Amino acid sequence: MNNPQLNKQGELQHLLTTEGLPARILRDILDRAATFVNMAEGGEIKKVPLLQGKSVFNIFFENSTRTRTTFEIAAKRLSADVVNLNIGSSSTSKGETLLDTVDNLCAMHADMFIVRHSQSGAAHLIAKHVAPEVHVVNAGDGRHAHPTQALLDMFTIRHYKKEFHNLRVAIVGDVLHSRVARSQIHALTTLGVPEVRVIAPKTLLPSRVEQLGVQVYHDMALGLKDVDVVMMLRLQNERMTGALLPSAQEYFKYYGLTQDKLALAKADAIVMHPGPMNRGVEIDSSVADGSHSVILPQVTFGIAVRMAVMSMLAGAK
Amino acid sequence: MNNPQLNKQGELQHLLTTEGLPARILRDILDRAATFVNMAEGGEIKKVPLLQGKSVFNIFFENSTRTRTTFEIAAKRLSADVVNLNIGSSSTSKGETLLDTVDNLCAMHADMFIVRHSQSGAAHLIAKHVAPEVHVVNAGDGRHAHPTQALLDMFTIRHYKKEFHNLRVAIVGDVLHSRVARSQIHALTTLGVPEVRVIAPKTLLPSRVEQLGVQVYHDMALGLKDVDVVMMLRLQNERMTGALLPSAQEYFKYYGLTQDKLALAKADAIVMHPGPMNRGVEIDSSVADGSHSVILPQVTFGIAVRMAVMSMLAGAK
Amino acid sequence: MNNPQLNKQGELQHLLTTEGLPARILRDILDRAATFVNMAEGGEIKKVPLLQGKSVFNIFFENSTRTRTTFEIAAKRLSADVVNLNIGSSSTSKGETLLDTVDNLCAMHADMFIVRHSQSGAAHLIAKHVAPEVHVVNAGDGRHAHPTQALLDMFTIRHYKKEFHNLRVAIVGDVLHSRVARSQIHALTTLGVPEVRVIAPKTLLPSRVEQLGVQVYHDMALGLKDVDVVMMLRLQNERMTGALLPSAQEYFKYYGLTQDKLALAKADAIVMHPGPMNRGVEIDSSVADGSHSVILPQVTFGIAVRMAVMSMLAGAK
Repeated sequence: MNNPQLNKQGELQHLLTTEGLPARILRDILDRAATFVNMAEGGEIKKVPLLQGKSVFNIFFENSTRTRTTFEIAAKRLSADVVNLNIGSSSTSKGETLLDTVDNLCAMHADMFIVRHSQSGAAHLIAKHVAPEVHVVNAGDGRHAHPTQALLDMFTIRHYKKEFHNLRVAIVGDVLHSRVARSQIHALTTLGVPEVRVIAPKTLLPSRVEQLGVQVYHDMALGLKDVDVVMMLRLQNERMTGALLPSAQEYFKYYGLTQDKLALAKADAIVMHPGPMNRGVEIDSSVADGSHSVILPQVTFGIAVRMAVMSMLAGAK
Repeated sequence: MNNPQLNKQGELQHLLTTEGLPARILRDILDRAATFVNMAEGGEIKKVPLLQGKSVFNIFFENSTRTRTTFEIAAKRLSADVVNLNIGSSSTSKGETLLDTVDNLCAMHADMFIVRHSQSGAAHLIAKHVAPEVHVVNAGDGRHAHPTQALLDMFTIRHYKKEFHNLRVAIVGDVLHSRVARSQIHALTTLGVPEVRVIAPKTLLPSRVEQLGVQVYHDMALGLKDVDVVMMLRLQNERMTGALLPSAQEYFKYYGLTQDKLALAKADAIVMHPGPMNRGVEIDSSVADGSHSVILPQVTFGIAVRMAVMSMLAGAK
Repeated sequence: MNNPQLNKQGELQHLLTTEGLPARILRDILDRAATFVNMAEGGEIKKVPLLQGKSVFNIFFENSTRTRTTFEIAAKRLSADVVNLNIGSSSTSKGETLLDTVDNLCAMHADMFIVRHSQSGAAHLIAKHVAPEVHVVNAGDGRHAHPTQALLDMFTIRHYKKEFHNLRVAIVGDVLHSRVARSQIHALTTLGVPEVRVIAPKTLLPSRVEQLGVQVYHDMALGLKDVDVVMMLRLQNERMTGALLPSAQEYFKYYGLTQDKLALAKADAIVMHPGPMNRGVEIDSSVADGSHSVILPQVTFGIAVRMAVMSMLAGAK
């Protein structure tokens, strides 16, 4: 009944998913991230001592250099000590259980775990298991959630559009396999976006996706009409030649974001992508590098959002 | 004739093995570790500047994320710069000799090497080779020694039992292949434990193990009788289906630590394990997680013991 | 027309190659490196805050623990935050382009990239692409250049020989495949060495190598005659059994540096090698460890030279 992400005072205890996170918390994270963005742009000072002496463990059961790097940078800018554990090559291969591994790291006085795992629910399992002074951030679990990605997306939208309550947002692509899409949808609806659309072929949509509060489109021309924000999803390589799609070329023809298709959105629409991009598959290079693209600012904001989350969780109270 | 681990003033120069290390040095390490344990539990301050500006190289010729992490954490809490070298993927694969690699790292002004190697004697070889201002810690070499593990075990025993001179200690399992067991036996006898038992099937005991000063048991019921401390050993996966044992199930039946067997020990006996555990092979989960288990405190103490060793070796004099 | 390595004020903006770098810049780097060498030898202080708060990314598209370590050490001694990216196992394997990867890291507010790549020109491509406040150091690209290696070699020569204008220098071995040799030749000629020789079998020399300003020898006895400096090159393992050479043994017989052959050089000649050495292939152990060898000082100077380059590029102006 009670939210495992909040402590008894209603403060953020873990960040596991955007689902069920109060709008108040989401806005707190975005506000705090803004201070880090301003700081980074204001001058030479990029480091703050908020996590001085704290130990942050990146435990990645699934390899992701990009995501691991963003958390490592964020933690180091907060002056934390960062230890990277690629657990694929570690104790679990010696038969140790996930929770034994976590217990061991806790016994080394870990303050925070950043967890990436191929199994949905892994971060929740760890969060339930650890002591109250230890904090868990989900850096992506299976198809379930990737909350810091969704939060940096929200930061980006707010940065360019100021408000959420008057927006029409389209999420385009492989929603079925995307933890990013799930986390985006929950964050968008919580923050009051009145119209969230998903655009994808039927084979790449979860059944009953409408129950998440979105409108479903299978046609880009209809789905992109008059939207303020276009959020592209990455098409995983393994989908391109599977049973769900005829080919990457075919996919690009119908669902790849080109300038022609983008012209149907509002004139000041922004285009987002969580990266890494497949140019010529889900997005045309002219759009990725074009004037509507805010893909690189997303990355910059991602560092600030992760600093915000980590400092809210483990910073001196 | 002279001890390669001590300098001319009788201070610790390298930590290579617990064999031949004076009780005075062992106690110094445990005493110093106690200050780090108290510090970590006393409050927010986890870092000290004892190794500020020093370079610690983790050179692991054999992969061990767990052990490497404990040393990395300990070094960072001492404010050292830590460089991790997984030498399996490095210069040795280009045909460079071990000593050339070490010479190169010394030329980069390394202050300390933490060495893990599959060959017994590798750490000694390196220690003999380096300049007097460079220190070597053996983090496990072949079947030979793993002194920091043994030292954290001694710390744990002293923490719970206060004294060594009145203890009955049993080491259970694959003593034959275990560098941990060898280092434990030397440390226990040096610190004055009057009765050290080893319990294992004949196939997992070294020939003439009695010469180390231990009593040999092949039966858990007899061996565990009235002991104060039970030190379990890990059964390597590769032993479970080899020529030495019929099966992991069979091993568990006769040598796995269950609550029934543990009941034969003293009522306040403690149970230790170096990790990672094979639950259901050498130890039952109810014991691993039970009230006698001090397995997780061992891990916590391990950080403090490694901080103690590293600061004694390379800290400002 | 303008030099991509210099900014409009004629200061070092990137270090990509020694080719075309003014003698003034080369000498600045060596002079600054000398201050770091003196500092390291003067006492306990090994760290300086010149890159405090700066983010240095080691992006290695080709594995090289040794080179990566030297840059990591140098950056940490300058108090930078260092992030190691082994890009082989990262986003490029997910289909992301090199420049997308670089754009992403820039968006994380990278201050400097240390780039190792198997393709000649990769570091130049990145340098052309990044914003003016981001600096690129080439840590080896294909057969093209390895400027920090050449600079540490120049430092070593100046350290032992004081001047360049009166020297006879021989570079021995596989010049054809060696980025080190190209960078050495450009640096030596720029710094005014009047006589640079290359000694190698025809199959291991580039066509028209004389156009680089060197004299060609195929015979060690002639080529080493009266030289002040012998710079050995590493013979890559894959050359030893290829079409270019009969065998490693044969190579050693004709081009391996032995004490007999070295006796033809000047009495005070120094012997250098970029490492890792193939003892018994390109160099005899008695020479590698002998009194003429300055191979380990090269490594020490390499840290100082890399500190000099990095602090010139990104240090507070």
